[in-house]
Amino acid sequence: MDLVEKVRLTVGNEYRDVKKCVLAYSGGLDSTVILSILQELGIEVVTVSVDFGQKAKMAEVKKRAQKFVKKHYAIDGKSDLVRMCSKGVKTNCVLEGFVNSGAFTRPLMAQYLVEVAKQEGADAVAHGSSGIGNDQLRMDNGIKALGPHLHIMAPVRDWDLRRDEAYQYARSNGLLADYEGGLLYSVDENLWARKIRLGKIIDHTTEIPSNAYEWTVDPADAPDKKTHAEVHFENGVPTGVTVKDGKARKVSSSDVIGTLNAVGGANGIGRMDYISDKVIGLKTREGCECPAGLILCTAHKELERLTLTSSELSVKNYLDNVWNGVVHDGHWYSRLRVDLDAFIDKTQEACDGSVMLSLYKGGFEVIGRKSPHALYDSRLGSRDSKSTWDQKASRYYSKIYGLQETIAFVMDTS
Amino acid sequence: MDLVEKVRLTVGNEYRDVKKCVLAYSGGLDSTVILSILQELGIEVVTVSVDFGQKAKMAEVKKRAQKFVKKHYAIDGKSDLVRMCSKGVKTNCVLEGFVNSGAFTRPLMAQYLVEVAKQEGADAVAHGSSGIGNDQLRMDNGIKALGPHLHIMAPVRDWDLRRDEAYQYARSNGLLADYEGGLLYSVDENLWARKIRLGKIIDHTTEIPSNAYEWTVDPADAPDKKTHAEVHFENGVPTGVTVKDGKARKVSSSDVIGTLNAVGGANGIGRMDYISDKVIGLKTREGCECPAGLILCTAHKELERLTLTSSELSVKNYLDNVWNGVVHDGHWYSRLRVDLDAFIDKTQEACDGSVMLSLYKGGFEVIGRKSPHALYDSRLGSRDSKSTWDQKASRYYSKIYGLQETIAFVMDTS
Amino acid sequence: MDLVEKVRLTVGNEYRDVKKCVLAYSGGLDSTVILSILQELGIEVVTVSVDFGQKAKMAEVKKRAQKFVKKHYAIDGKSDLVRMCSKGVKTNCVLEGFVNSGAFTRPLMAQYLVEVAKQEGADAVAHGSSGIGNDQLRMDNGIKALGPHLHIMAPVRDWDLRRDEAYQYARSNGLLADYEGGLLYSVDENLWARKIRLGKIIDHTTEIPSNAYEWTVDPADAPDKKTHAEVHFENGVPTGVTVKDGKARKVSSSDVIGTLNAVGGANGIGRMDYISDKVIGLKTREGCECPAGLILCTAHKELERLTLTSSELSVKNYLDNVWNGVVHDGHWYSRLRVDLDAFIDKTQEACDGSVMLSLYKGGFEVIGRKSPHALYDSRLGSRDSKSTWDQKASRYYSKIYGLQETIAFVMDTS
Amino acid sequence: MDLVEKVRLTVGNEYRDVKKCVLAYSGGLDSTVILSILQELGIEVVTVSVDFGQKAKMAEVKKRAQKFVKKHYAIDGKSDLVRMCSKGVKTNCVLEGFVNSGAFTRPLMAQYLVEVAKQEGADAVAHGSSGIGNDQLRMDNGIKALGPHLHIMAPVRDWDLRRDEAYQYARSNGLLADYEGGLLYSVDENLWARKIRLGKIIDHTTEIPSNAYEWTVDPADAPDKKTHAEVHFENGVPTGVTVKDGKARKVSSSDVIGTLNAVGGANGIGRMDYISDKVIGLKTREGCECPAGLILCTAHKELERLTLTSSELSVKNYLDNVWNGVVHDGHWYSRLRVDLDAFIDKTQEACDGSVMLSLYKGGFEVIGRKSPHALYDSRLGSRDSKSTWDQKASRYYSKIYGLQETIAFVMDTS
Repeated sequence: MDLVEKVRLTVGNEYRDVKKCVLAYSGGLDSTVILSILQELGIEVVTVSVDFGQKAKMAEVKKRAQKFVKKHYAIDGKSDLVRMCSKGVKTNCVLEGFVNSGAFTRPLMAQYLVEVAKQEGADAVAHGSSGIGNDQLRMDNGIKALGPHLHIMAPVRDWDLRRDEAYQYARSNGLLADYEGGLLYSVDENLWARKIRLGKIIDHTTEIPSNAYEWTVDPADAPDKKTHAEVHFENGVPTGVTVKDGKARKVSSSDVIGTLNAVGGANGIGRMDYISDKVIGLKTREGCECPAGLILCTAHKELERLTLTSSELSVKNYLDNVWNGVVHDGHWYSRLRVDLDAFIDKTQEACDGSVMLSLYKGGFEVIGRKSPHALYDSRLGSRDSKSTWDQKASRYYSKIYGLQETIAFVMDTS
Repeated sequence: MDLVEKVRLTVGNEYRDVKKCVLAYSGGLDSTVILSILQELGIEVVTVSVDFGQKAKMAEVKKRAQKFVKKHYAIDGKSDLVRMCSKGVKTNCVLEGFVNSGAFTRPLMAQYLVEVAKQEGADAVAHGSSGIGNDQLRMDNGIKALGPHLHIMAPVRDWDLRRDEAYQYARSNGLLADYEGGLLYSVDENLWARKIRLGKIIDHTTEIPSNAYEWTVDPADAPDKKTHAEVHFENGVPTGVTVKDGKARKVSSSDVIGTLNAVGGANGIGRMDYISDKVIGLKTREGCECPAGLILCTAHKELERLTLTSSELSVKNYLDNVWNGVVHDGHWYSRLRVDLDAFIDKTQEACDGSVMLSLYKGGFEVIGRKSPHALYDSRLGSRDSKSTWDQKASRYYSKIYGLQETIAFVMDTS
Repeated sequence: MDLVEKVRLTVGNEYRDVKKCVLAYSGGLDSTVILSILQELGIEVVTVSVDFGQKAKMAEVKKRAQKFVKKHYAIDGKSDLVRMCSKGVKTNCVLEGFVNSGAFTRPLMAQYLVEVAKQEGADAVAHGSSGIGNDQLRMDNGIKALGPHLHIMAPVRDWDLRRDEAYQYARSNGLLADYEGGLLYSVDENLWARKIRLGKIIDHTTEIPSNAYEWTVDPADAPDKKTHAEVHFENGVPTGVTVKDGKARKVSSSDVIGTLNAVGGANGIGRMDYISDKVIGLKTREGCECPAGLILCTAHKELERLTLTSSELSVKNYLDNVWNGVVHDGHWYSRLRVDLDAFIDKTQEACDGSVMLSLYKGGFEVIGRKSPHALYDSRLGSRDSKSTWDQKASRYYSKIYGLQETIAFVMDTS
Repeated sequence: MDLVEKVRLTVGNEYRDVKKCVLAYSGGLDSTVILSILQELGIEVVTVSVDFGQKAKMAEVKKRAQKFVKKHYAIDGKSDLVRMCSKGVKTNCVLEGFVNSGAFTRPLMAQYLVEVAKQEGADAVAHGSSGIGNDQLRMDNGIKALGPHLHIMAPVRDWDLRRDEAYQYARSNGLLADYEGGLLYSVDENLWARKIRLGKIIDHTTEIPSNAYEWTVDPADAPDKKTHAEVHFENGVPTGVTVKDGKARKVSSSDVIGTLNAVGGANGIGRMDYISDKVIGLKTREGCECPAGLILCTAHKELERLTLTSSELSVKNYLDNVWNGVVHDGHWYSRLRVDLDAFIDKTQEACDGSVMLSLYKGGFEVIGRKSPHALYDSRLGSRDSKSTWDQKASRYYSKIYGLQETIAFVMDTS
């Protein structure tokens, strides 16, 4: 059966009232096929591409779109994304087992689509998320929250668009010119991270092939001398970085993410290989390259250990997890996320300072940290005669500390 | 003033009824000075040394003790400690920001002291913890729980024993023969980890000097070829490891901790440098070498991601933190720890399988994992025609998912 | 359009392979209509009714069923349900904002349906849950977990069966004989609780009419003298109750739930009126009568305050919430629930004793509690000369307690 | 031994440098004895009394103080306390098992003492807390945070001042004139709550005698007709109340706490009897009268159920507990409390509206609630033909919901 015919049968009367649709257009095979089919269904399409720092050239994408549509929007989302990533650093997002990245771009993408739809007077928006991952939920929830009047289309999911069908359609309709063969993996890339899924890595028992990585070298190919980096934070947000490599070249930059991705990648740092849970209940195996994220979150967490109280650290650790779960599972536009931000931003007021790191052959270590708000007094905590700590007081403290636990334990065992 | 005189003034009548004391004896300067002073105070002392896998030779320690006492107990605590570390792996203890190690040996030490005190009919036990760290609380709580009738002495804390006073006393009393100069650091070592405190590392802004480390080489000095390791787990406990190094030598062992400490250390893995919170409210800077712990907890966590449900992971992540905090803060002998064990052991019933790792120059990565209980079906989650997942259902799921969040968000912004 | 025709259009080919279906049959209008339509669709139906202690007579239900089917199962689920409620008491289920009740019967109902399906060789099970509440999720998840091979039908939801359509069908098909007019409310009743929804109470701003309640009298109509009750617990489970009413009649019983529902209801106790969240995102207004549940959970919580350590109470309070949320949201048959049970059962080992209560005109109070495991020593905590507490130690404790908080606070404000 | 002599021996040289001390003076026996002894020790004393709404007359207290001191400060703390109680309502403080009350007045008292000390150039402050409860920690932490340079004295604790010693000293020194016999209980009263401890209620197995209560009548003595109340909230704070009693008298007031304490108490509402945990590890039995608190927190929680999202409710429930624990345990002046306030205040932006209650003979019920931000749509959630909810979508939702739990469960049991 013809693909357009299958789509018509699947959607029935649903698109009946849709006249104009804003489509998130990546320039890839899927979104080109979707664009073409929407037009065959008689819907006017406006395309939107967003530059989140991925490899794909925006000019190229625009050129492809303009073969089909009269109106194409090219949006620069990089500074919006950097702002989201700063929130990610404040919540140690890469360390919490979620590795949030698409969870940051999708809410922005939803926002841009709704804005364009309003400007264009469109009555629908379409995005390329499948029915498997969390992106569909992130996009749909964003659109429902920001443009509740809009019809939402996710053709890959709603039409159950299989890869072979898309390829067949593209070939029959002369859309293949720009595509050189199939992709080995499904990649989601932006200035923060490059995620790899499916393809050869679907077998979770075997190593991810080296050619799956583009941002990071194999640690064995990294420089033979250590690189040092010092990252500066203000209110928990990275504001600058100074790097000194093995040849003693020194560079300072306020583009902390860009700099650390380059330096980290060159030192083989930032490869991740893990099992991830999707909201619908599937587990997937993912690879990720995220050098800056890994370094920044590790440095930030250590700065928190120096500047936050122990009780703040304990509660914030729990709420970081909640925040990252909420965002990962598609609830960016939720009150709970906003409530949590209020807590997190308050804690970060003390989180100023610098963290020093050593990078080498795929690994890195924190080697020092300093802050004007350090809750650390080197005169305390030693046993020499300059100590200002009267440790005899601890004796009475220890008599009382654990009193109830002890009473209960003795009672249980006697 | 004479040190014994100072102690007499400090303790007043408190030791009046104490006739016989069991002393935890490490063979070090502090414990030798304490032994001698307790005897000067007219108290009969029985010494106990425990082999937890630290470098110090037990025979040597025994010899030193027997210069002073008639009865010395040399106890092998290694297999007890391995059992505690297995609980540590189940709770991912090294990843939770606590790096528990002394928190495992102290409860055992308290147990041994109380057992010897009962056997010897002693009315007091003494240990060398200072009034600064958590060890005092771990020891005191252990003794209070297991031997509530015993008088507890922590001379370093209770007498406010300064290092220079101890040194002075030792010199005056001819006790220095066995000690070659002062230690650069305060080290706490056992088969699980080697912790470094004080001395030169007290300045948290500068790198820990290389000579502070003994278990791990500098990553730059590690082998130029990758080492592979495969760790086997049963019910969350590591039961075996197979290592293949760059020269293709292959070794299998059931001594997982020993093997991974050797292999990890040789590859420069396991150095940690962090700020730690003590119960009394101080922050300290600590160094740690813990290759096996770091590798095992990372591998175990990844195996949990494969075999536990997403909701189990989320709650267990929180409770792992609670467990490690409880144990770190001296409450091993508490009902809460026992209650948490019941939860944790239940979750681990599914945690069987193997994790494959690559070790190289200070870093390591998980490269594969497998389990008979993997909650992973590679037929789901792809978009090719062999997929068994009907992604159209997701469309309706997505309509409902986040419904309330969206209603609230629209309400707030309109 | 004819209702059967509508159903045929809606289900299409889906029931094609279904030959024999086990239907949860309540005897009500909905389930009688469903039964009849399933038979019109050519499916053999076996009916199952379960006695969970609701008012409806099982013999009556059986008689109605046997007008239609050859095989009817009447199952006594009361003792299974009491066991579930005991778990509910251990987790203080009525106090956690969920008021679990249907969350206990549905997993049992799913179990019974699957058991009968296996015995009868049926290939489908059907239940009457709508697409609005959590019962659909509780039933479906139970069936998926226990009988994954079975086809699941929820006709009210899957056919979008409206009340007026059902009524119309029943009238046309002569099924109305046994029904005296429409119900004012949707009621879900069992031996633990009687829940009221929809109908006149859907307006959440006005009081629930008195005639909505059947188990409880209006407080104004309750006896003028106080009733006393003493409840006994073993391992957190209520095992007996002694009641002395205002006329000094004294009754003891091991049917704690039945006794307290009768006595509580007679004293006007146990009415609840609250907003509840459904998984799909709706809030509903519910009324509930649950005298025994309210009294037992309150008493049990107080006994926990006497016998559990403060740290156990804190963590258990959190996990009680998690447990009740998991169960409320349809995950009875989940590993997490089983894991949590292990923690909860462990804590309850100390929870033995009695709680004394005073009941009067709609309210009740705990007036005493006792336990062999009370962590309470009346010699401590007073300031007279018999006190065994040396309060001077507290001075040093207080010097140290809060040290870090204070340092941070002074730093922030100076 | 003479009491002053005992104190001199106990404090040794500690008060050596203390010239002027600001004493929290309640007018009671303890604080009068302390005042006198401090003066005997040669310390100039300035007294401070605070009106938190307790029964004691400020003028009377001033008169007593001025028999001894030249300078007495009478401070009106009522409006500060109302502000603290508003935070308490926002966190449902009475429902969380802590019944915070003294935890609100002590931080204010510490603030006033430090302010007076600064104004008077005093070098010490003294308060009457014992070494048993949490008040000592609340006071000490407050003083350490706000006036870290000040010497802190808690004579009851630091001198181990026993009740009989104080009485003896008072008699010998002619200080008894104003005191009519011993108190039966230890009472802590303010405009929010009246707490009762020790004395006859120390036996936790027997009922608190009726004469221990002053704010509330016995439910049996309450009016025979129901009283209705409607409480208005803005951003979670009670801003007004309208009461209509059984005689149809209607009163509106912005003094919500005062009004509800009067009305609640007259209806026998607000008595509490429970076991409470102290930081040092003791459990105590407490009685409390807190009519307004109980009514307000119950009403507020119900308003939250109507206006907050389900995920907000779940996380806030946890954080309410954390907040109340932090405050109960003496950490008002902590960063964590301030961080939590940021979260809580953000959630309360939606918490506007009214809650209707029925009060009668010791019990009360919520009977209605309304809000402009209600997340409740009565058109959804019903099954009649006006419903706007397409319940067929739920079928697909239910297919996916719980998928992973089911897979895991089937795997475990097969």
